[in-house]
Amino acid sequence: MKSCGIIAEYNPFHNGHRYQIVEAKKITGADCLVVVMSGNFLQRGEPAIIDKWKRTELALAAGADLVIELPFAHAVQAADYFAAGGVELLQALGVDYLSFGTDYEGELDYHQFAEFQLENQVQIDEAFRRIQNNGMNYPQQMTEVYRQLFPEMRLDFSSPNHILGMSYAKENIKYPRPMQLAPIKRHQAQHNEQSVNHEVFASGTAIRQAMLAGRFAEVQPVVPLKTYQALTECPLISWEKLWPYLKYQLTILSTSDLAEIYQMTQGIEYRLKEVAKQAESFHQFVELVKTKRFTWTRIQRLSTYLLLNIKDQDILRARAQNYLRVLGFSQTGQQFLKHIKKQTTLPIITNINKKNEELLILDIKAGKIYQMATAEKNEQDYYKRPITIKC
Amino acid sequence: MKSCGIIAEYNPFHNGHRYQIVEAKKITGADCLVVVMSGNFLQRGEPAIIDKWKRTELALAAGADLVIELPFAHAVQAADYFAAGGVELLQALGVDYLSFGTDYEGELDYHQFAEFQLENQVQIDEAFRRIQNNGMNYPQQMTEVYRQLFPEMRLDFSSPNHILGMSYAKENIKYPRPMQLAPIKRHQAQHNEQSVNHEVFASGTAIRQAMLAGRFAEVQPVVPLKTYQALTECPLISWEKLWPYLKYQLTILSTSDLAEIYQMTQGIEYRLKEVAKQAESFHQFVELVKTKRFTWTRIQRLSTYLLLNIKDQDILRARAQNYLRVLGFSQTGQQFLKHIKKQTTLPIITNINKKNEELLILDIKAGKIYQMATAEKNEQDYYKRPITIKC
Repeated sequence: MKSCGIIAEYNPFHNGHRYQIVEAKKITGADCLVVVMSGNFLQRGEPAIIDKWKRTELALAAGADLVIELPFAHAVQAADYFAAGGVELLQALGVDYLSFGTDYEGELDYHQFAEFQLENQVQIDEAFRRIQNNGMNYPQQMTEVYRQLFPEMRLDFSSPNHILGMSYAKENIKYPRPMQLAPIKRHQAQHNEQSVNHEVFASGTAIRQAMLAGRFAEVQPVVPLKTYQALTECPLISWEKLWPYLKYQLTILSTSDLAEIYQMTQGIEYRLKEVAKQAESFHQFVELVKTKRFTWTRIQRLSTYLLLNIKDQDILRARAQNYLRVLGFSQTGQQFLKHIKKQTTLPIITNINKKNEELLILDIKAGKIYQMATAEKNEQDYYKRPITIKC
Repeated sequence: MKSCGIIAEYNPFHNGHRYQIVEAKKITGADCLVVVMSGNFLQRGEPAIIDKWKRTELALAAGADLVIELPFAHAVQAADYFAAGGVELLQALGVDYLSFGTDYEGELDYHQFAEFQLENQVQIDEAFRRIQNNGMNYPQQMTEVYRQLFPEMRLDFSSPNHILGMSYAKENIKYPRPMQLAPIKRHQAQHNEQSVNHEVFASGTAIRQAMLAGRFAEVQPVVPLKTYQALTECPLISWEKLWPYLKYQLTILSTSDLAEIYQMTQGIEYRLKEVAKQAESFHQFVELVKTKRFTWTRIQRLSTYLLLNIKDQDILRARAQNYLRVLGFSQTGQQFLKHIKKQTTLPIITNINKKNEELLILDIKAGKIYQMATAEKNEQDYYKRPITIKC
């Protein structure tokens, strides 16, 4: 069975995601499309607008065959760790292709580029060190390093999707049998008149903002019908619902308690604690905290670690043992999983019990906190079985 | 100026409290009535139904001349530490009398009894150790110790007010110039037809329950008019308003984190964490956690320490340096304070600033958490000045 993997967040699942699934299957000819998806907290350090189960359902309905949760310790991370976690899971599943969206304008062979990068690693790392702490953010630094070292390549790293693509490629070549890369240009979507039902596209950010502001009509054309239904029926979660708990944490913890939180560096704990006294919303909190070095995303991630009381050793322990948490599958996905079970080195988890709960402790905790925001009775992890669809 | 002290909680201030103030002034002939009052969290480990400022106002309106806050580290404690903190403050103020309510039926000279207790301390402590861990609660143990050692005294310790009275007396005789004790029998109130305007009496517990259940009509006859107004105008606070934060704490903290909380002993952290998963209210939580040894009150206190993230060293540090935080005064109280300023050994604090905030750190934290429950904009500690009344 030929398989293709996608690493995604689906926050929420929109027409662009559906297009990507259809295209990935078409380009690669894969029978089984595997999605590694963030759980209830996302790469940029925010709660998902709808929970991981609903998002799994929407992905399956749009053609995904197997949805695996990217564990918290890998999901809520900068691009390189996020990519490393996702690629590790797809490799453990023996997936043949890795497809990803890119909005990079030029032509780039990601695989070749990753090899080039590996060959020049020492030089690149050195250039990086030289320009560190100059006030530029990571993408700007990357662009600058390449401008200095390899000006003829004319590389631009300003797009987050492009950065992720390069991170996937870089991780992928570390394995003895790298997956074949299948980048899909995002712009094709808008330009190709023959594309899936003349769909209309919008970014996840735009969709979330419109939904949270109650501008439902804007969202309807840019998401599949099932997503639209889910967004109008489910509790919509944003950081604001969790802000009272974050503020509470920043109130009761001393600066030395705060300093023990993962990624709490450079004395930022003083600033967080001070600002929390005045801020009346999460949005205002981040606005007041953020600096050139502490970007919006970095503060969001830090806030998530604090909200979940995550220490260095929690992340180290979780990263040391990855696992395949199955969120849902089609019949094809189920077959694929049955086949792979015999050869994969990672534990496959379909339900939480006393034996495996320690392994998934961060995901479970994330689910419990997420549940406080949804105020729903049903648990996010215990008593849950993978979502199945017949097709 | 002759002065009389009362150690109180006023949760809320009711007719019995007013009766006590009037009687105390009458019996002792004091010009200045000093109240040492718990702040926003109380002896039994619960938030006050209305905040410390409003309760101060009500006490002043009913005849108190000076209201001093009993610091958190002394207030949220079993009877002996609560009494020790209160007596220390009254001693530091050079107060002449100490008045307290008692519902003890028999005749007892509290001062003499305290001396008797001190003389027989070794014997009493030994008897205590022998019957420890037998499943009885503290009042039952006290009664049993005295039944074994001094059966002729026929002492009964089942009333919490009586226990407090004995604790005050015991602390008081430790000082070179003990205050004169002025116990006031609570039952006099109901029996004395000449008493203050034929007032009707009810306990603080009954009043809180009626108010929180919306049975306002029951409350009106048993509290001063100003209390009734306050209870109908202010946000009424109970543990339920803080339950989401307690549950959150029990979700994110590991059992080893929990074990570091002050008074978290005998592995109770496992039980708390487990029960929090199922409990849907604070009431249900305590019902499910409580055992013979872990009484309702003990669990409430533990919950308060956890809610405020209080460790052993926080309490030790706070107890090592007591202080006189002034919540309010009448003109008489202000004169008294001016006079005492020259001779007291404890710092007198009338407003919070950078220099003293470290000293009051637990009270400030308690105020911030209390503020989360009231959802009011105005701070509990910063930018506050003592409440004054003209009379």
